[in-house]
Amino acid sequence: MDSNRKNRAWCLKKRPQGEIQQDDLELVETNVPIIAENEILAKTIYFSLDPTNRIWMSDIDQYMEPVEVGDVMRAGGSLAVVEESNVSHIKPGDIVQGGLHGGWQEYFTIPGEEATSIPIPDDIPMTAFISVLGFTGPTAYFGFLDIGKPQPGETVVVSAAAGAVGSIVCQIAKIKGCYVVGIAGSDEKCSWLKNDLNVDEVINYKSEPIFDSLKEKCPNGIDIYFENVGGEILDAALTLMNNFGRIPVCGLISMYNDWDNPGPRMFRNILMKRLTVKGFLVSDYLERYPESLEALGAWMGEGKIQYKVDVVKGIENAPDAVNKLFTGENSGKLLIQVSEEP
Amino acid sequence: MDSNRKNRAWCLKKRPQGEIQQDDLELVETNVPIIAENEILAKTIYFSLDPTNRIWMSDIDQYMEPVEVGDVMRAGGSLAVVEESNVSHIKPGDIVQGGLHGGWQEYFTIPGEEATSIPIPDDIPMTAFISVLGFTGPTAYFGFLDIGKPQPGETVVVSAAAGAVGSIVCQIAKIKGCYVVGIAGSDEKCSWLKNDLNVDEVINYKSEPIFDSLKEKCPNGIDIYFENVGGEILDAALTLMNNFGRIPVCGLISMYNDWDNPGPRMFRNILMKRLTVKGFLVSDYLERYPESLEALGAWMGEGKIQYKVDVVKGIENAPDAVNKLFTGENSGKLLIQVSEEP
Repeated sequence: MDSNRKNRAWCLKKRPQGEIQQDDLELVETNVPIIAENEILAKTIYFSLDPTNRIWMSDIDQYMEPVEVGDVMRAGGSLAVVEESNVSHIKPGDIVQGGLHGGWQEYFTIPGEEATSIPIPDDIPMTAFISVLGFTGPTAYFGFLDIGKPQPGETVVVSAAAGAVGSIVCQIAKIKGCYVVGIAGSDEKCSWLKNDLNVDEVINYKSEPIFDSLKEKCPNGIDIYFENVGGEILDAALTLMNNFGRIPVCGLISMYNDWDNPGPRMFRNILMKRLTVKGFLVSDYLERYPESLEALGAWMGEGKIQYKVDVVKGIENAPDAVNKLFTGENSGKLLIQVSEEP
Repeated sequence: MDSNRKNRAWCLKKRPQGEIQQDDLELVETNVPIIAENEILAKTIYFSLDPTNRIWMSDIDQYMEPVEVGDVMRAGGSLAVVEESNVSHIKPGDIVQGGLHGGWQEYFTIPGEEATSIPIPDDIPMTAFISVLGFTGPTAYFGFLDIGKPQPGETVVVSAAAGAVGSIVCQIAKIKGCYVVGIAGSDEKCSWLKNDLNVDEVINYKSEPIFDSLKEKCPNGIDIYFENVGGEILDAALTLMNNFGRIPVCGLISMYNDWDNPGPRMFRNILMKRLTVKGFLVSDYLERYPESLEALGAWMGEGKIQYKVDVVKGIENAPDAVNKLFTGENSGKLLIQVSEEP
């Protein structure tokens, strides 16, 4: 191949203080790698932007190693097309997941034993495989069902309800016969939740007093609070939890830019209401992925699960785009599109 | 009976601000009640003082109704001797548990259908039935085993380890083959834990820097943190928890005098380490009591479980004595002895 072909990669230049700034990252140009025996060269089509990117940029004690300063930013997932292959079971043109080899860059290599082609059916958009059928659907599925243990008629509150995971949780909760209250950050998101996803009640936390609204819209208290945000919303939910309620902790996005925030004042209700609060990562459920994909696929086929993607074109826009997750400007799974779908 | 016989009862005069003050309670003298048909009259021998008394004195949203101002203070348990009975299955001289009818008082009535005699074997002190074989043993048993789910070799940290519940947790953890670190508030308590209960390591939180000591004494991190105290010790434990650790929340005593404390700063580790944090009350396990009493009794018979009681004589001393729980002056199950054992 043309050894002058260039790869562009966003590298972590310094650890952000508060919100991610443009100069915390640097778009570095390098040569496209030459593949070794038993490697493939993949060209990124989409990579995922996720709240957890902000965790990886920090050096707090976290669930995996932080991204080192100078390294290519890690992505929660990517879809790429194979350009070259020295591996018999993968051929150019195949679509593969980037896993930890991808990241915020245009080209990367994968060892043959870690590469698997993803067959993309004609009737499902490719973006489904980096959203609802990638990680966000299974995250919702395992966190809500395994930890939430929903019963019909129970009250379920979902924060970041219009987000990539939250919106799937809302819909699974409706499928399971729950009364669902979604919290989101704009009237538009609230309309989508209520009118398209049939969520029972919605709260715009930016325009409504969160505790009062939550109390009003949960007349029977809260049985399951699916936690994506932390902060004031967590405290309001803790206050209104019913005895033996469950809180799957999927994210704490309101804290990611400032870990010095104090913890929830109403921590005591874990005792008073005998709550179960449990953190989880979708990667803890890797062995059970097929179960979740089968269920999600079936519900999608029945029209019971919708999903949204928010595609931002151009690798150069990644640092700006990732901040949309923290301001609430995005809606649905946020992706950077680096190159055209083949 | 003598209708002039007097009952003395501690009534809640006003809700304490911070530490319980003498004048938050009032020792009121009334006539001993005349029993109705199907009632018994019981005379208190012991009543239990527990950290939760402070919760009941406050009007925060809690796991049962607060004690109303003017009402007799509720006790977590009491042992009483039957003085008069209009019930065929209970006779004068029988020992009964006071349940919610007892409280901080000398005499009380129990409806016949709620009264059960407790046979006290000759070889077991009566105080065992208001401590290890009353509520504290089952609390330790269910919280540690059901929520903690200990595995041999795991590291278990117990706060308030020399307390009525904590000391039983330490011993069950040793029985289950765990490495046990106990946190207590005096060198004397620490010696008891280490020398008598064979706890592996001890920390005097009043004289040692809690985080540094805990880190040093838990070289493999913490798998189970049995939580009795909240505050700084909770934060230190959260920081050192291993992936998939469990935190049974039995009490949060450091917060009971001041609920305005912020929650744990390291709440985020519930997510990062995928912890299970679960509050519980022993009363949630009422149906399984016999299981716990059988196990505890067997371990006591084998000399594997020791327990301590701290008996303060005289009903007039209850308000002073209850504060010993908050200063850490007591050691073992704190009881008020109101009258002599028959």
